[in-house]
Amino acid sequence: MLIDGLQCGFYDRAVFEELRQGGFTCVTPTLGFWEGALESLDALGQWRDLARECADIVLIARSTADIRKAHETRRLALLLGYQNTNCLEDRIRYVELFAELGIKVMQLTYNNQNELGGSCYEEADSGLSRFGREVVREMNRVGMLIDLSHVGEKTTLDTIEFSQKPVAVTHANAASLFPHRRNKSDSLIKALSQKGGIIGCVTYRNLTPLAACDSIDSWCEMVARTVDIAGIDHVGIGTDLIHNGDRAYLDWMRMGRWSRSVNYGAGSAASADPVSDPRWLTRPADLSKVSDGLKRVGFSKEECEKITAGNWLRVYGEVFG
Amino acid sequence: MLIDGLQCGFYDRAVFEELRQGGFTCVTPTLGFWEGALESLDALGQWRDLARECADIVLIARSTADIRKAHETRRLALLLGYQNTNCLEDRIRYVELFAELGIKVMQLTYNNQNELGGSCYEEADSGLSRFGREVVREMNRVGMLIDLSHVGEKTTLDTIEFSQKPVAVTHANAASLFPHRRNKSDSLIKALSQKGGIIGCVTYRNLTPLAACDSIDSWCEMVARTVDIAGIDHVGIGTDLIHNGDRAYLDWMRMGRWSRSVNYGAGSAASADPVSDPRWLTRPADLSKVSDGLKRVGFSKEECEKITAGNWLRVYGEVFG
Repeated sequence: MLIDGLQCGFYDRAVFEELRQGGFTCVTPTLGFWEGALESLDALGQWRDLARECADIVLIARSTADIRKAHETRRLALLLGYQNTNCLEDRIRYVELFAELGIKVMQLTYNNQNELGGSCYEEADSGLSRFGREVVREMNRVGMLIDLSHVGEKTTLDTIEFSQKPVAVTHANAASLFPHRRNKSDSLIKALSQKGGIIGCVTYRNLTPLAACDSIDSWCEMVARTVDIAGIDHVGIGTDLIHNGDRAYLDWMRMGRWSRSVNYGAGSAASADPVSDPRWLTRPADLSKVSDGLKRVGFSKEECEKITAGNWLRVYGEVFG
Repeated sequence: MLIDGLQCGFYDRAVFEELRQGGFTCVTPTLGFWEGALESLDALGQWRDLARECADIVLIARSTADIRKAHETRRLALLLGYQNTNCLEDRIRYVELFAELGIKVMQLTYNNQNELGGSCYEEADSGLSRFGREVVREMNRVGMLIDLSHVGEKTTLDTIEFSQKPVAVTHANAASLFPHRRNKSDSLIKALSQKGGIIGCVTYRNLTPLAACDSIDSWCEMVARTVDIAGIDHVGIGTDLIHNGDRAYLDWMRMGRWSRSVNYGAGSAASADPVSDPRWLTRPADLSKVSDGLKRVGFSKEECEKITAGNWLRVYGEVFG
């Protein structure tokens, strides 16, 4: 099994086939960044159409049973998520409605502060707000995974403490291994682990050590160092791969409708164009080689399976119920 | 069993208790008239909260099995519906999403023409539009009951013909028994029946013959005449009772946000205030006496059961699948 905690981009049958034949069991695609409720429902409706058209090779998963069923029937499980909470339109009751419609992962903030809390790119981080606490409680109740990847450090720590269920950093690396606002401090990763959470190591070049972009063994070495921080039960994979992304897609991620000027996020003016994937990751199927790489850097078969799928399954099980 | 195909107003635990103890098995409350998607989801969220708070006496039904379960556990089944399609915001994919969230009945138009077709109060009726046909097909596919009570005659006839599943006039009377734009021609009722549909006879004073407002037997006589038109398998009850309605509620029904002046709907300037219920219907529990009234006007026990519940159950079963 191979589970990828976060991807982005435009999906079609070809992408599904590539992922399935590349050995992926389950991926979380990003259905939205800045969209409000109506556009978020539009995206969900289009994804349902696409999944129906490709029902022979994919299924929309709502439980670990669905993910196992996908594995058994050689299909790709799609665990749907948004990378923001704009879709809630300040309504606590929408959490339940989106969960029931199959949105199983939601990031509390994307790159900007919002009603729930602070983002990693803001100068100041208020911590988890009053509405933020309401949403965390509701996500716990209805069984939706809380994603903190782009969330500010204080808001993240507040959420780890406040949540009654494990939470996730679906796609980031340890800042001690590659300093970046989007990467996570060791103390944050430890707090996350202590509450049963998980960090998904990214392959995204802007957040990954240079050496780990050059060779698969070096990337697996980085994963091993992350395990040193988080513990073997709390590390997974969250590539942040973008399928069929173009400049317009990148612009939407960077600016939404909230700005007229480019806000580079994990990139910078010096690297304004989409970055390439690591050298060892020329196509999604290359990720299936990670299992051997993890063994070469010292992990047992059981430990490899935890990192490539087992830890995600445990967290999903605890959160989805 | 007693099934009421349409009611309105503000519900609370007291109303639920009154209906349950009054012998009602299932009612369709109106969750919206002019609301767009966001407000419609708000209403749905509030109804879910209310149903959860009152889970000992009500349940939200999505199938005939749920209605029977409510009956067995002495609870009131709530079959949720909107009296308009504004909640779709011109999106075909929203039909499936609302259906999955538990909206099982939707009226194609309320008092105004919309993107789907004409209303009974418009001078001209285009018939079922292109988007209207898309929505009818989609409601068929996802198992949502099409309500035509306020819809214009041509659009109604088009829908009866186009729909692959039985459709309903949940709350209206025969125009041959009481002439009114909101009541339905014999030819329309016959076309409806021939396709397996149902008409729910109303107790709403503005649509009901004077005598039928004065005595229960006279109202049952009106039902018998409706059965003469539609056939015994195609008549039910759809009271149009309003719970806790006030002037503001009536104003919203009449004007929404689309007009500054009162549009009286079934009423008139001469009877601008909310009308009282028929003399024999001083409280909802009085409706349970209809069963005896139907017997007095000549129906057998089996026929009574069809009118009070069985015909609705048949249509719901065929539509919900």
